[in-house]
Parts: sequence; C-alpha cells; structure tokens
Amino acid sequence: MTGNDWQPYPVERARRYLEPGPVVLVSSAWAGQRNVMTLGWHTVMEFSPSLVGCMISAGNYSFELIRGAGECVINLPTLELLDAVVGVGNTSGAVVDKFERFGLSAEPAEAVAAPRIGECHAAFECRLAEDRLVADYNFFVWEIVRAWVKPVPERPRTVHYSGDGVFMVSGETVDRSVDFRPEMLP
Amino acid sequence: MTGNDWQPYPVERARRYLEPGPVVLVSSAWAGQRNVMTLGWHTVMEFSPSLVGCMISAGNYSFELIRGAGECVINLPTLELLDAVVGVGNTSGAVVDKFERFGLSAEPAEAVAAPRIGECHAAFECRLAEDRLVADYNFFVWEIVRAWVKPVPERPRTVHYSGDGVFMVSGETVDRSVDFRPEMLP
Repeated sequence: MTGNDWQPYPVERARRYLEPGPVVLVSSAWAGQRNVMTLGWHTVMEFSPSLVGCMISAGNYSFELIRGAGECVINLPTLELLDAVVGVGNTSGAVVDKFERFGLSAEPAEAVAAPRIGECHAAFECRLAEDRLVADYNFFVWEIVRAWVKPVPERPRTVHYSGDGVFMVSGETVDRSVDFRPEMLP
Repeated sequence: MTGNDWQPYPVERARRYLEPGPVVLVSSAWAGQRNVMTLGWHTVMEFSPSLVGCMISAGNYSFELIRGAGECVINLPTLELLDAVVGVGNTSGAVVDKFERFGLSAEPAEAVAAPRIGECHAAFECRLAEDRLVADYNFFVWEIVRAWVKPVPERPRTVHYSGDGVFMVSGETVDRSVDFRPEMLP
C-alpha cells in the first residue's frame, strides 16, 4: 500500500473522468503482443451499461490487437505523464515496446487481458459491446466492466488535445449543482 | 461588423474546438419548431469528411426535431454562457422557447435550417451522415458541412461537464509540437 493505490469505482460513474474529453492511453494485449496508444476521439454513450465509443484508426498497430482481442483498457493520464502521452502518440508499437520505452507499468487487469497502466489516475477495463461501425468508421463501442481510480488528487489535471501539437490542461472547477433539477443529478 | 463576427473555418479542422471535449449547445429546427439542448457526449470521428458522433437521448425534445430534420448545428459556448448552458440543460423545449428564455440569438445558418447561436464562439453546421446506431444507441454520426469561428479570443475558455452539476473550465495550453513527427501535424 502506498496510500494511493487503485480503488474500485462504480462503472456507471465513468463519465466523471471521460466526459470532460481528456486524452487517454488505450492499452491492449492479444496473441502474445501488447501495446498502448494515445487517443482523443472518444465519447461516453450510456451510464448503465457503461458504454464508451472510440474511433481507433486502422492505421495504428493497436487496431489489430484491439480488434482481435475485443478488449482494451482505457487509462487516464495526468499532466505529469505528458511526455509519455506525446511519445506514445508519435511512436509505433510495431517497432518498439512502448511500455518500456516510456516507463509505463503494465499491471494485470481483473476482467481483461489488456494491462492497466500503473502510473495513470484511472483505468477502465472494456469489452467490445458493438462493432457495426468498425468496418466503415473504425468506431468501437465498449462496455466498461471494471473501473479503478486513485483517490488522490480528487480532481487530477488532465490533458486535452486540440491538434497541431497543442494540449489544453484542465483548469478550475465550477459547481453549479444548485441550479440542476434533482433528476439531472442521479 | 463588430470586429468579432463569424469567420468561415475549414471543416476538416473542427477537431481543434471539439476534440478537447467541451459541452456544446445543439440547435435544431423542424416542422415549424426549434430547440436547443446541452450536450457533452460527442466525439470527432474523421477529418475529411469532417465527422462527429453524438449521443442524443431520445428523451430530449430535441431528438424528434434532429431525427426528423437530419440536420443540426453544434455550437460552442464559452464560460460566459454557463448560465445558459445550465439553464438549457435543465429545461425542456416542450414547454418553453429556450432561445428567448436564455437570451440566445437564433441566427440563420448557411447550409441547414437549424440556427446558429449568435453568442457562441464557434458553430458547426451538420447533416446526418450515418444512422445505423440511432435505433439502439441514439448515436448520430454527423458530417460538418460548414464551420464558423469568431477570431477573438484565440483560445476561448470552454466548459467541460463531469456530472453532479460540476464543470471543469479549460485551463492553460501547452505546445508540444516540437515533439511531434511531421506527419502527425497535418
């Protein structure tokens, strides 16, 4: 115990971490290979089952691993991992083991073969839920079957990509819950 | 001319504004009705054609207008519009005209019947590109056919929803373009 280990988190509340639109690191494992890729093209699609949609370009080495396994882990990096985020996004897993190269720990997940990344703030274990748009759009719909979050900090600084090599870093939070109808705050 | 009017923007570069994951206001018009809704569940899906996927719950009044028209405008609000963002998200267009109620200007768009929202920073006119996942997931894939951006400020403060009535406001930007492979910076 380091005092900041993974804690189980309700899968139906994954939106807290994914809906703001951070860059994520998607890890995969299949047929003796493993890889990790940087991804900014994802969206929450449902609370329960906990669904998230991801556009994973077929040009990525990860595509075949993810397509073959029908599983992945969506890991949430924070600002401290920006070097790894940029490095992973600009390197191909076909020529290098990106976990070793960028100092990322591949930890066993619970429900899927793909690893959790130990340095990340949250990890969402995913199984394929829907593939009708994969052939035409490389768009996968995942069900989050396990979720893990580190308790500290409560609001991690996440990075959000806007293209051209520029990232936005998450800023202050504003609580407007008093202005919400009760049924909008499940 | 106010000095900060809409400027045409290349549709294939819409990711600059949408990929960081901001809350957007989706406007619609159909069969003599108009409406606007708050949306956080969207993702970029392709540069060219410029595709964006949105999960629009069938429980929203906007759903029927958007489904019927096969068109919408995705508008980008900034922090200054947070009252309207919260109000629009907690009100039904079935009982109130949300443009009037929240002081939003419904300006004519160019390629679609849905209005642009004059107070927003950017507006993306969309036509339906793919509806295979609408019946099961309420998931629409849109092609952005016109894009409009106001030149000032260069980096608007956007709001990003994390549930429970709490918004994250976009913070500083970090330029890491020197660490990118040239082909990653189209």
